[in-house]
Amino acid sequence: MSNIFVKRFTLFSPHVMISGMNEIAKDTNSVYLDYAAATPLLPAAFVAMEPFLRLEYGNPNSIHKLGVRARQAVELARAQVAQAVQVRPEYVIFTGGGTEGNNLALLGVIESLRKEGREYAYMEVVTTKIEHPSITKTMEKLAELGVTVKYVAVDTEGRIVLADLKELLSAKTVLVSCAYANSEIGTVQALRQIGKVIAEAEKKYNTIIYFHVDAAQAPLWLSCQFDSTGADFLVLDAAKCCGPKGVGVLVKSKRATLSPIMFGGGQEQDLRSGTENVAGIVGAGVAFQAAQADWRERAERVIQVRNQAILHLMDVIPEMVLNGALGDNRLANNINISIPGLDTEYATVVLDTHGFAVSTKSACAGAGGGESVVVREISADPARAASTLRISLSPDTTLEQIKSLTAVLKKHIEQMKRLTS
Amino acid sequence: MSNIFVKRFTLFSPHVMISGMNEIAKDTNSVYLDYAAATPLLPAAFVAMEPFLRLEYGNPNSIHKLGVRARQAVELARAQVAQAVQVRPEYVIFTGGGTEGNNLALLGVIESLRKEGREYAYMEVVTTKIEHPSITKTMEKLAELGVTVKYVAVDTEGRIVLADLKELLSAKTVLVSCAYANSEIGTVQALRQIGKVIAEAEKKYNTIIYFHVDAAQAPLWLSCQFDSTGADFLVLDAAKCCGPKGVGVLVKSKRATLSPIMFGGGQEQDLRSGTENVAGIVGAGVAFQAAQADWRERAERVIQVRNQAILHLMDVIPEMVLNGALGDNRLANNINISIPGLDTEYATVVLDTHGFAVSTKSACAGAGGGESVVVREISADPARAASTLRISLSPDTTLEQIKSLTAVLKKHIEQMKRLTS
Repeated sequence: MSNIFVKRFTLFSPHVMISGMNEIAKDTNSVYLDYAAATPLLPAAFVAMEPFLRLEYGNPNSIHKLGVRARQAVELARAQVAQAVQVRPEYVIFTGGGTEGNNLALLGVIESLRKEGREYAYMEVVTTKIEHPSITKTMEKLAELGVTVKYVAVDTEGRIVLADLKELLSAKTVLVSCAYANSEIGTVQALRQIGKVIAEAEKKYNTIIYFHVDAAQAPLWLSCQFDSTGADFLVLDAAKCCGPKGVGVLVKSKRATLSPIMFGGGQEQDLRSGTENVAGIVGAGVAFQAAQADWRERAERVIQVRNQAILHLMDVIPEMVLNGALGDNRLANNINISIPGLDTEYATVVLDTHGFAVSTKSACAGAGGGESVVVREISADPARAASTLRISLSPDTTLEQIKSLTAVLKKHIEQMKRLTS
Repeated sequence: MSNIFVKRFTLFSPHVMISGMNEIAKDTNSVYLDYAAATPLLPAAFVAMEPFLRLEYGNPNSIHKLGVRARQAVELARAQVAQAVQVRPEYVIFTGGGTEGNNLALLGVIESLRKEGREYAYMEVVTTKIEHPSITKTMEKLAELGVTVKYVAVDTEGRIVLADLKELLSAKTVLVSCAYANSEIGTVQALRQIGKVIAEAEKKYNTIIYFHVDAAQAPLWLSCQFDSTGADFLVLDAAKCCGPKGVGVLVKSKRATLSPIMFGGGQEQDLRSGTENVAGIVGAGVAFQAAQADWRERAERVIQVRNQAILHLMDVIPEMVLNGALGDNRLANNINISIPGLDTEYATVVLDTHGFAVSTKSACAGAGGGESVVVREISADPARAASTLRISLSPDTTLEQIKSLTAVLKKHIEQMKRLTS
C-alpha cells in the first residue's frame, strides 16, 4: 500500500496533494455508528483550537509573550478538565492519548514503587482479561519485569466478580486496573463496590492498593467526577469524546506517585516531557468540559434509542445474541451483538456500502479478522466471539436509522444463508 | 498559577472562554526570533489538516470508508515524509513528538538488544554532554538500567572530537547518539565523519553500533536525506519545521530493530500504539516535505542575514562572546551569544516588551533561570554560561530587524551598567 502512495505521491505537488485530501474528505454523509472508535470534533473545540494552530504558535516553555499566552492556554485547558472531573488542576496531566495515559499510569506507578525499593517480585497487579489492549499489553510488559499479574473473573456480562476480587487481593497487591466501561461490549464496572473491596483489603493488609480506571469510553455518557470513581488514576482520551486525536488526560489522586515513561524537558510535572500540543490540549479542554456538562441528559436520551434498537434487532434477527449487560450496567451508546455463523467483518463492509459505519470490535484490537477476546472471555463461545458486531451510537442516532440498518443486515443474513445452504 | 485559572475559569462559559482565547490571540505582531523553540504552522499544512479536524474524524484502524480514508491520509503523509528523507515508507514511524522519538530510539534499541539476550551491563552508549534534555535525561535512565553511558569530548565550538570518539568506542558499544544541530548553539555535527569512525569500530570489533541522530533542528536548514546522515535512527519534530505540535517522526534503518516504549493496539508497526493523530500527521507530512523541498535556498538566504547580524552585534556590543561555530558548522538560523555579567533572562523580558521574542537557551532546558549546560560544557566559563542569549532567525528575518534588536539590547546593557556602577 505504502508503495502505491509513493508512486502516487511523486506525481503530487503539495497543492495537488491537498486538493487530493479535500476530495478524500467528500462523501461523509453516512450513518456513523462507530462512536466507540472515534468521534467528530466538537465545533466549539475547533474554534478554540484554530488560533493556536494559526496564530499562537509559541512554545509554552518560552518566557516571551507568545510563550506566556501558550502557557495560559494550556493552563486554562487544564482548569477546564479539572473542573469537569472536580479535582485541583495540579492533578491533571496531559498525555499523547488514552493509550499513553494507561501506559503512564500502569508502568509509572510500578516504576515509582520500584524506586522506593520494592522489588517487582513483591508486587502483584489485578486486572481482567477483557481490557483494552493498552492495558492488557502493558500488563504483559509488567509480567516481563517480574510483576505478578492476576486476572479477576468477570461474569457473563463482563462485570468483575467482587468475591473473586476479594480473594485475589493480598498484602502484595499494589494495583487494581479496569475500564470504567468496556470499549467493545460497553459493560460498566461497579467502581464504588470495587473501590470498597480495595479499601477493605488496604485496611486488612495495612497497605496501599492503587486503583487505575481506564475511562476512555466514559465522558459522554457517565460521570467522571474523580472522587466518585474512587480511582487513583483516571485515564481519558479526548478523541473518544469529541475532542482532537492525540491528546489524553491522566487524573491522579493526591496520594499517588508516578515515575515518567518518557524523559526530557520535564513538562507536565516531569510526567510527560516534550513540548505541549497546545492546540490539541486547548481542544481537549473544551471537549471534556462539554462532555461532562450534560452527560446525564445525553445518556438518558440515547439509552431510550438504544433500548428500543436492541428490542428491534432481537425482533428482526432472532438468532442474534446480545453481548454485555442491560440497563445501568451498559454504556448508554453501546450495542454489541453476535450473529453466530455470520462473517461479521464482511457484514461490516456490506453495511458500510449501504452507508452504515459500524465495527466488529475495538479498532485497537485490530479492525481485521480474529475473534473478540472480550466476548470469548464472557461467553466461552468461539462462534459467538467470532461473529460480533459493535454498533456504538452517536448522541443524535435515531431509532429509524437503526431500523434501516437492521433491514440491510437482515437482508444480508438471508443472502448468506441462501449461499451457504 | 493554576489556581488563578480555576478562579478565572469558573467565571467562563465555554463561549466566553473561546472569545477569551481569541483575545489572547491578538498582538502577535512582534519580531519572532525563537524559531528553535517553536515555529508557525505552514498555511498549507493547516489547509491539509482542516478536513481531518472537521470532517474526516474516522479512526484509521476502522474498516469502514471513514476509517479507510483516515488510513489513506496517514499513509499519504508517511509517503511524503519518506520522500522528503528518501527512504521507503515502512521506515517512517510517527510519534507524539521529538522527545518521544528520541526516547523510543534510545530506550527502544537498548530494550531490543536486551530481548536478544544482551545484558545491560554489556552495553555501552556514547553521547555528548551538550545534548537536548530528551537525550541527556533518557541517558540517565539507561544508566539506571545498568548501561554504561560514556560522554565523548566536544571542542570549544561544540563539535564531537573524533579522536576521542574513536578512543571511546569498544566491543561493548551498541549506540552513539548526538544531535544533527545543537538546539542552543546551533553547532552542526560532522555526521559523515562520525559515521566513518563508527563504521571503522564496527569492523574492528566485528559488532553493530547503531547511530542515533536527533535532527529536530535540521529540516528547514539542512539535508535530512537519510542515507547521507549515516544514521540508523533519525528523529524529527514537526513543530520545529512549521508543522503542528505533538507530532514527531522516527526514521529507522533497515538493519535497526526497536522495542516499543508504549504498549497497546500495535499501531505504527507496534512501535507507537494508540489511535493515530490523523490531522497532526497530515500536517506533519506537508511540513516535512516543504521544509526539505528548498532547505538549501532557505539556508543560503538566512546565512547571509545571520552572518551580517553577528558582525553587527559584535560591532555594537564588543563585550559579547559568540557561542558555537561559524560557517557551515553553524545552523543557518542560529545566533547564540553571551554577555558576561548581564542578566540575560531579564534582557529577554526587556527585548520582549520591545517586540523581540528571543530566548536564553533551549525552552526544554527550562525557560527560567539557571546557566546553559551547553555553554558551560564548551567554555568551562560560568559567567558565559549564565549570560546566554539565543536568537534563532525565521526564514524572513531581516538585518534591519536584528539591528533594531541590537539597539534595544545595547541601550539595556548601558542602563544595567549605570545601575550597577
